[in-house]
Amino acid sequence: MSESPDPIARAGALLRELRERRPRVHAITNAAAQTLTANLLLAVGAVPSLTTSAEEAPAFTARADALVINLGTLDAERRAAIPWCIAAARGAGKPWVLDPVFVEASPPRLELARLTLAGQPAILRCNAVEAEALTGEAPTPDVVHAFASAHGAVIALTGPTDLVVDGRRLARIANGHPLMTRVTAMGCAGTALLAAFAALEPDPWLAAACGLLVLGVAGEVAGETARGPGTFPAAFLDALDALDGSQIAARARLS
Amino acid sequence: MSESPDPIARAGALLRELRERRPRVHAITNAAAQTLTANLLLAVGAVPSLTTSAEEAPAFTARADALVINLGTLDAERRAAIPWCIAAARGAGKPWVLDPVFVEASPPRLELARLTLAGQPAILRCNAVEAEALTGEAPTPDVVHAFASAHGAVIALTGPTDLVVDGRRLARIANGHPLMTRVTAMGCAGTALLAAFAALEPDPWLAAACGLLVLGVAGEVAGETARGPGTFPAAFLDALDALDGSQIAARARLS
Amino acid sequence: MSESPDPIARAGALLRELRERRPRVHAITNAAAQTLTANLLLAVGAVPSLTTSAEEAPAFTARADALVINLGTLDAERRAAIPWCIAAARGAGKPWVLDPVFVEASPPRLELARLTLAGQPAILRCNAVEAEALTGEAPTPDVVHAFASAHGAVIALTGPTDLVVDGRRLARIANGHPLMTRVTAMGCAGTALLAAFAALEPDPWLAAACGLLVLGVAGEVAGETARGPGTFPAAFLDALDALDGSQIAARARLS
Repeated sequence: MSESPDPIARAGALLRELRERRPRVHAITNAAAQTLTANLLLAVGAVPSLTTSAEEAPAFTARADALVINLGTLDAERRAAIPWCIAAARGAGKPWVLDPVFVEASPPRLELARLTLAGQPAILRCNAVEAEALTGEAPTPDVVHAFASAHGAVIALTGPTDLVVDGRRLARIANGHPLMTRVTAMGCAGTALLAAFAALEPDPWLAAACGLLVLGVAGEVAGETARGPGTFPAAFLDALDALDGSQIAARARLS
Repeated sequence: MSESPDPIARAGALLRELRERRPRVHAITNAAAQTLTANLLLAVGAVPSLTTSAEEAPAFTARADALVINLGTLDAERRAAIPWCIAAARGAGKPWVLDPVFVEASPPRLELARLTLAGQPAILRCNAVEAEALTGEAPTPDVVHAFASAHGAVIALTGPTDLVVDGRRLARIANGHPLMTRVTAMGCAGTALLAAFAALEPDPWLAAACGLLVLGVAGEVAGETARGPGTFPAAFLDALDALDGSQIAARARLS
Repeated sequence: MSESPDPIARAGALLRELRERRPRVHAITNAAAQTLTANLLLAVGAVPSLTTSAEEAPAFTARADALVINLGTLDAERRAAIPWCIAAARGAGKPWVLDPVFVEASPPRLELARLTLAGQPAILRCNAVEAEALTGEAPTPDVVHAFASAHGAVIALTGPTDLVVDGRRLARIANGHPLMTRVTAMGCAGTALLAAFAALEPDPWLAAACGLLVLGVAGEVAGETARGPGTFPAAFLDALDALDGSQIAARARLS
């Protein structure tokens, strides 16, 4: 990590603020992620809403403190609602976070992801395959820095080691557990935590780094109690609910 | 509670009848509640169906014993299906239950909730914020009684203490557990139990009071075994599956 | 079972191949089954995708190794996407599996199921009520054999004892646990395992028999650790993740 502020110190404080201030997060997310996303937000103290209708989602967004746009299971309702919700978040000066799930698998989705990027998300969370589809080349730190600068967005690139990049600063987070990749929508639900933190922390790079750190530490704690991929999600939510700054400090592997 | 029949005595008997007679409940409910609603109904012995298509949902409703209309994630399919399903339930003489989720957050949803109330639900289940949006004032017992009388519906108002009101009778149920508010769709899924009981018990006030009592007691049992909000839903379904009249009688806090 | 190859021996090997080769399975499935289907596929090592949009699902299908078509919660998006996905799977020479959920409950769904059968699924998985709706008579082994022959599809008929029939061969599988019927979408999610096996095993009768055997054995293992219907699904996924050929051989009740 190139410079302060320190995500390790900030993450515990952000969790406490979240539980006290209970920000609202509206999420347009894929069908397999809706329940886990809502439960993750409730587990950390935020208030979720999930409506995908173009008639209603902008009103939900306008009263929310942050917005998640996840491009999974992109049906006609979501397609119609997404640009209006982005407009509502921008109009209200609220941060929004983009999760371009499976953007490598569907040409119209890639096109739509590029259009939504023009709406300037605070944070783009993706994995290496999705990043490569968006940038057109292997997502090295330099490539990701350049992409972040070009779009004015923090890139939170998740993998065995997560990278959080804003064109200038770089955090590497090595926390996490292999079972996190064996449960559907763990990444998608995690994106909602980044949005909740961005509702409270005006520096989106710090919000993203704190979010991925909290997710990785909670995943490690859960990996120690879960008996397999079936029992993992409940253990993960329990761990998030109980997590505090001292656990984060003790386990953080940040560089 | 103003008078007999006694929900404490009836709740255990209704649970037994449910397991024996296995009523069908069709639920048009929100995307985050569909799985938990189906699993709650299966856990108590009922048979769920969930189709939201206007082409199919009325046929499912016509063969069901009760209908749930939950206004969450109100997309075009649900919007088109809801009035036909209400018509199908009324035509077949079957009770239906309305859950006006987040009605305070979206003007078109509030409008739609008012229109559906004209279809005379047996029970309206809502929380205080939703009740205030519908009635236009703070939902005191008198306000709720008046609203119940005006619409010919039982109001099941959930909160730290639940109220069940029909314009004449009032039950207060103080059972429950704080983790019930930390899991998405617990209220929505619970509404389906009220519908299942209304399929068997012709007095909707008694069905609603028994339903909220069973949900509250199962929540307390689950709260004693769950390790947090992640493990709570499974513990809650296990508790519902094992619940009997003696547990209900031992734990009921009804007045 | 009338003849070799032996599903008991093949099932363990197929599980190992699945974990090594990680086939992609695209599933158009009902709203209550999407999360469990994805998690079941991840638990056995496959890679799920779930998009239901007609604009995107054919591209996902074309890059997948097998396709699941489940007719539950059949909305306009799914209705439009299904024939294009079947065409994409057939065009790519990939197997697809049909799950005609609740086909007995909705005349337009029965009509649509008959039309999709013309697209020659490798496997049709259904229960006795669904089979009777499709064949027009009680699904005796002879009736099911004749239906399988007429449609060139393996029929995997699930119940207390499962039958796997291709017009010539018959396997009877008596594994399983009563809690499997107390959790929504267990059958629907199980269908995805049959598709994953069909991606690896060119004989769809063998793929289906191995799939139902694995599901039944995992269900038995889970039934020994679950405390009720709430804790069953997580226990089932954990059991699938840990299952191996020796457990299958020790528990198989196949004839």
